[in-house]
Amino acid sequence: MPVEHGTVRCLGVDPGIGRLGFGLVQETGNSLRPIDYGCIETLPGEALEKRLFSIYNSLQEAIDRLKPDIISVERLFFGRNTTTAEAVWQARGVVLLLAAKNRLPLYQPKPAEVKMAVAGSGTATKTQVKRMVSEILRLQAPPRPDDAADALAIALTGLCLHATESRMISLEGRNPC
Amino acid sequence: MPVEHGTVRCLGVDPGIGRLGFGLVQETGNSLRPIDYGCIETLPGEALEKRLFSIYNSLQEAIDRLKPDIISVERLFFGRNTTTAEAVWQARGVVLLLAAKNRLPLYQPKPAEVKMAVAGSGTATKTQVKRMVSEILRLQAPPRPDDAADALAIALTGLCLHATESRMISLEGRNPC
Repeated sequence: MPVEHGTVRCLGVDPGIGRLGFGLVQETGNSLRPIDYGCIETLPGEALEKRLFSIYNSLQEAIDRLKPDIISVERLFFGRNTTTAEAVWQARGVVLLLAAKNRLPLYQPKPAEVKMAVAGSGTATKTQVKRMVSEILRLQAPPRPDDAADALAIALTGLCLHATESRMISLEGRNPC
Repeated sequence: MPVEHGTVRCLGVDPGIGRLGFGLVQETGNSLRPIDYGCIETLPGEALEKRLFSIYNSLQEAIDRLKPDIISVERLFFGRNTTTAEAVWQARGVVLLLAAKNRLPLYQPKPAEVKMAVAGSGTATKTQVKRMVSEILRLQAPPRPDDAADALAIALTGLCLHATESRMISLEGRNPC
């Protein structure tokens, strides 16, 4: 299927080590279409390096299949350095590596920015965000699992940030009145 | 040059984002030889994903060239979650990914284990560790920069852990008296 002029495909990623959510949203004019979403899972009993390699392979496969134009990866916030936080940071390193390796422009929204972009408030609840994702993308049912729903919200935010950036670049290019 | 029987080549890595130290030590019987050591540097002004990709490419090139049998990557300890800590964790994720991608058995010594293995005390100073690395490897001058010296110490520790593990496996295989 040929891609329409002005179409942008954004891959949203919710970084994790046991479950990493991904979701691709395609924007054409005012229309937003969810192309695919899901979750990459790794086994808790497996060595960390093997889990990272598994994420690397699965996400590269998703990039090859879904052909995004841009990628949006949520920033992480952990109160304390825990074993889980360390593993998730290392998984996020692999995701960022794939962004550069595939030459995908990267957007890194904060959790509050994702809530603001999708639900109109930086303090929206997870349920509110999920409901808004379903409404915006006209899904029959709320996306599952939660990691995939989050990834779709992150993709929608990436598209907002990309549109804002493109608008600013185009304004910069104009001559002063 | 054919590799002698019983030879083990260990690549030590001191994870970092601005400077990542690496060092390859070859062990044959009781002899320890430094084959190569150095530092992979990335530019502070560059985007994080590009720096991670640069580390990925440079370290893969070092693996291809130095052909290690095992890899030793130091564990990290940060008191607080800082921007530097986050970036270094993400760089460590890329190093661990390369361990699995190249099917290299991975050892992850703690800083105190490195100090103990090389200088005989878990509380040895950086200077003591560096001096012992020079002595053990019969280097004319202390290795530079510090990140490369650390990487050689981490490689020596990896060889110790590997030897201990091999000895235990061989003991397990014996019949009870």
